[in-house]
Amino acid sequence: MDKKIVLTGDRPTGPLHLGHYVGSLVSRLEFQEKHKQYVMIADVQALTDHADQPETIRQNVLEVALDYLSVGIDPKKTTIFIQSMIPELNEMTMYFLNLVTWNRLKHNPTVKAEIKQKGFGEAVPAGFMIYPVSQASDIAGFKAHYVPVGADQLPMIEQTVEVVRKFNRTYKKDVLVEPEAVIPSIARLPGVDGGAKMSKTLGNAIYLSEEKPSLAKKVKRMYTDPNHLRVEDPGKVEGNPVFTYLDAFDPDKKKLQELKDHYQRGGLGDSIVKKHLLEVLEGFLTPIQEKRMEFAKDPQTVMDMLFEGTKTARAVVAQALAEMKEAMGIIYHPSTVSR
Amino acid sequence: MDKKIVLTGDRPTGPLHLGHYVGSLVSRLEFQEKHKQYVMIADVQALTDHADQPETIRQNVLEVALDYLSVGIDPKKTTIFIQSMIPELNEMTMYFLNLVTWNRLKHNPTVKAEIKQKGFGEAVPAGFMIYPVSQASDIAGFKAHYVPVGADQLPMIEQTVEVVRKFNRTYKKDVLVEPEAVIPSIARLPGVDGGAKMSKTLGNAIYLSEEKPSLAKKVKRMYTDPNHLRVEDPGKVEGNPVFTYLDAFDPDKKKLQELKDHYQRGGLGDSIVKKHLLEVLEGFLTPIQEKRMEFAKDPQTVMDMLFEGTKTARAVVAQALAEMKEAMGIIYHPSTVSR
Repeated sequence: MDKKIVLTGDRPTGPLHLGHYVGSLVSRLEFQEKHKQYVMIADVQALTDHADQPETIRQNVLEVALDYLSVGIDPKKTTIFIQSMIPELNEMTMYFLNLVTWNRLKHNPTVKAEIKQKGFGEAVPAGFMIYPVSQASDIAGFKAHYVPVGADQLPMIEQTVEVVRKFNRTYKKDVLVEPEAVIPSIARLPGVDGGAKMSKTLGNAIYLSEEKPSLAKKVKRMYTDPNHLRVEDPGKVEGNPVFTYLDAFDPDKKKLQELKDHYQRGGLGDSIVKKHLLEVLEGFLTPIQEKRMEFAKDPQTVMDMLFEGTKTARAVVAQALAEMKEAMGIIYHPSTVSR
Repeated sequence: MDKKIVLTGDRPTGPLHLGHYVGSLVSRLEFQEKHKQYVMIADVQALTDHADQPETIRQNVLEVALDYLSVGIDPKKTTIFIQSMIPELNEMTMYFLNLVTWNRLKHNPTVKAEIKQKGFGEAVPAGFMIYPVSQASDIAGFKAHYVPVGADQLPMIEQTVEVVRKFNRTYKKDVLVEPEAVIPSIARLPGVDGGAKMSKTLGNAIYLSEEKPSLAKKVKRMYTDPNHLRVEDPGKVEGNPVFTYLDAFDPDKKKLQELKDHYQRGGLGDSIVKKHLLEVLEGFLTPIQEKRMEFAKDPQTVMDMLFEGTKTARAVVAQALAEMKEAMGIIYHPSTVSR
């Protein structure tokens, strides 16, 4: 079987939520069975727009790792690692930056949208502007074939493909691999406020580690069909986040269809549907949270697992960097390639 | 005695010339007696505008080292090192880039002038745009107090000072040292064509390794006073590069003054003055070139000296980076700081 290499990861800026589960974690569970998967806890990338909050990032490295383990990402199958502990990635970025024009970076659509969303304006950090190139290093450093991304992240993969091509062409050797974006089939999960995207920043998320009282409160206040005013009125299912969540998490699809039909006919109150959603989410989250609590009892073991993964990952990247430097012809001494 | 730390260096894009000698090498000979001096062969920086010519850079690492040794830079007093062999510098740059705005980089006067001079236009490589931050790492990595620069490079030191201040303030610890620019008292040497600056790119340089026939040709064709048409005419000494070179290299200042007086009175032909300059330059270059040939016989010993210097330099930078990461609080494991 021809195993492909997958690179993916998260910025450790907060706990993971249901949007992460639907949008990426669930597909990682599949990837780890079929491919060689590397999952990066991107603390260096997190610093590009959180330079003054390193403590938040440091703390969330463990939290994100606990989230991974609790949903079933298995360190025996998936290599989980900490980005800042692979210094070779920075070296690759410095060499890649010479192959990308300043102008090209300015016009990256993903970065432009994020600058607007974050309200950076003229004060955007240079580190943030170049993060597509840093991401190119992450991907190229593992010679990843597949990178699972949301549709809004496609320009990042295009940037990586450009860098890889330019490198191989400039140094006349096929050292690096052109990656392919994999867009998950499952649609992105809306926020509890009905916003298009669940996001920590937007404050509309349900976390994997969400506690029961807080979960109940969030579900109770969820946005539904704004025109469904009286119980007897017919309600809309499309674009109604309560039903989108049920689509994603309710294992009983037959009963769900009956519920939808009833809601559309009229006579089914939001509070009844929400009560059902709460049960479904509790059923989904309880085993995850129990597993999380088990792992959280012994954080050192979790960190050791990360260090082990990082060691494996670092050797892979160091090898890629050595091949790059060899192609560039800037190896002066054997110590440059071995470690 | 309170020794200060000095950082300086050159891009290995070609052999060093008389302009380098007057503008920087001569002051390095003084610094190495008074201070702790690090001299960097900046191959990573050279790649920022020579990404497609790594072979030129690789070859010139040795050439530049030979130039250093031949003029008397002494590896026992001065630590000479190769930039690309200190990967910690790249890591520092990545963290620094988060503390500098994109906008600030766009307005660096030195970089703006160089973009114009190099004709980059819109195609300026991102690596070139951020090289002031990479240079901030070089300086901060050694906690250098003094950085000898030409007046046109002052904005680079200002950028470093800003980065250092921002780092210390953001991470609430005085880890890094604000450097001070040292501008050499000796004016910059003009080109043989009378251009304001001797430069390889402008093709108006006399190299330290210039061979005798080529030296004679260059001196013979040198730009002088364009209004000094007949021997009997009075000539101008100011702005006449032949006399500027004599000021820099003729050890017999009394005889030089007589020559200047005679030239200004009239009756002294350019060819006579040039003949004298040729003798002076031969007298200056011959011992340097003899020393260079001695060292060039055994290039491996020269490279080993560079590796030795690089090892020493790397330990210094690794220590600074460890202190930085500690201040940032992003050390997860002891291996991050020790090596």
